[in-house]
Amino acid sequence: MSAKDTYHDAVRNALIKDGWTITHDPYTLTFGRKDVYVDLAGERTLAAERGEEKIAVEIKGFMGASEIRDLEVAVGQYAFYRSLLARLEPKRKLFLAVPDDVLAGTLGEPIARPVLEDLHIALVAFNPEREEIVQWIP
Amino acid sequence: MSAKDTYHDAVRNALIKDGWTITHDPYTLTFGRKDVYVDLAGERTLAAERGEEKIAVEIKGFMGASEIRDLEVAVGQYAFYRSLLARLEPKRKLFLAVPDDVLAGTLGEPIARPVLEDLHIALVAFNPEREEIVQWIP
Repeated sequence: MSAKDTYHDAVRNALIKDGWTITHDPYTLTFGRKDVYVDLAGERTLAAERGEEKIAVEIKGFMGASEIRDLEVAVGQYAFYRSLLARLEPKRKLFLAVPDDVLAGTLGEPIARPVLEDLHIALVAFNPEREEIVQWIP
Repeated sequence: MSAKDTYHDAVRNALIKDGWTITHDPYTLTFGRKDVYVDLAGERTLAAERGEEKIAVEIKGFMGASEIRDLEVAVGQYAFYRSLLARLEPKRKLFLAVPDDVLAGTLGEPIARPVLEDLHIALVAFNPEREEIVQWIP
């Protein structure tokens, strides 16, 4: 099992423990053309519901060679996906899910804060080993 | 010469033809740590001035295997860079420079418009062969 899949399962299990029902896995958006559908499906985004709340969760491990490049890619995917989601299902809020050490590490760096703040990126940190949600930053 | 370098020179020459003075090539931002400095320098961003106007220009060829992935990466880098620039040099406006066929192609697609609009991404299209600016979308 790849690390990517491990994180996917960890987030899925953590959300269930946190009282969420997984409704789509993966959660895909269709917008215009089929190749886009396929590409977005590859991003391993989950959809979940808890009571009246509906969320989509984009999972990112930040396991690349460059933490800045990982941040740029995560931000770009989040912004792209959120803009489509806002038009297709505006009541569903998009979260970027990251391991708790990434929240405390890369995402806590002074260089990362400006774009996270400017784009109002909603975060959820999970512990990969315990498979638990550690913090929501909506 | 790689295609990346070709585009870089094309944009540089196109800006000069358009009356701009290239002031930094590459244009680097230092924010906190040296490794970030190096990473940002790798993005091939130019800085230019024309009269009172100051701009930074991030050049993207969209030559990857997936146009959606290219868009996500370009958006993420633009947003990241713009947020830092806003804090370090707020009067300098950031543009994303793309070949004119990318503006008419990928960036004109219904799936691309939402994020470009929501993030107010300023674009400049250039013709790589003629080395000329074709359109500013500030």
